[in-house]
Amino acid sequence: MEISIRFTREAIVAPPEVLPSREIGACLEFQGIVRETEGGVALAGLLYEAHEPMAVLHLERIFRQLSSAHPCAAVTFIHRLGWVPTGEASLFVRVLAAHRGPALRFMAEAIDRMKADAPIWKMTKPE
Amino acid sequence: MEISIRFTREAIVAPPEVLPSREIGACLEFQGIVRETEGGVALAGLLYEAHEPMAVLHLERIFRQLSSAHPCAAVTFIHRLGWVPTGEASLFVRVLAAHRGPALRFMAEAIDRMKADAPIWKMTKPE
Repeated sequence: MEISIRFTREAIVAPPEVLPSREIGACLEFQGIVRETEGGVALAGLLYEAHEPMAVLHLERIFRQLSSAHPCAAVTFIHRLGWVPTGEASLFVRVLAAHRGPALRFMAEAIDRMKADAPIWKMTKPE
Repeated sequence: MEISIRFTREAIVAPPEVLPSREIGACLEFQGIVRETEGGVALAGLLYEAHEPMAVLHLERIFRQLSSAHPCAAVTFIHRLGWVPTGEASLFVRVLAAHRGPALRFMAEAIDRMKADAPIWKMTKPE
């Protein structure tokens, strides 16, 4: 599987879609967007930080493990760090696969495991 | 739930992403792409046809039913009809929701039910 992992402190821009073969039947993209209300509190945004080298290692391991259960051809992962205002994306994930079933399962499990395991943190900003 | 359903005979262009509220936390997009090989046969593309008014009614019913189980704020559905060359999208679906879980489940079930029930057909092109 082709794996691309990137962190950015700018607004996320989806990279151009390039199909690695003529056997890609499913392109699935997820954006995680900062909501105004979290735990009943209105927020202007969230602050994200990561240990980037460790996060890359974690994510590569997660993606490789998942791709044996849910075969996918490529995953592109972009996480924004620093201050992310409400209504903007903190996360972009694109999965390319022959079939939608594995793409959907890969996406669901990859984000669950990223949130549980990867050294990426979110905080409300101190005023 | 906001529902937008459209059929087109041109290449699908994803419409601009507009968030209907500040409580959208998940934007999930699926593109179904024509693969070169189907059932062991190499294809240059597929021909899609639909009974458009009936398909819209079917899809609206499917989306409304699913949104009670998997709350989503909006779904945008675009299906290409006519000849779709290999490597191009025949289907685009965007789901907006507060949370990724319902968005992923809505997407999975909506496409399964569309393929099972909606009067949209695909054919290999007669030479």
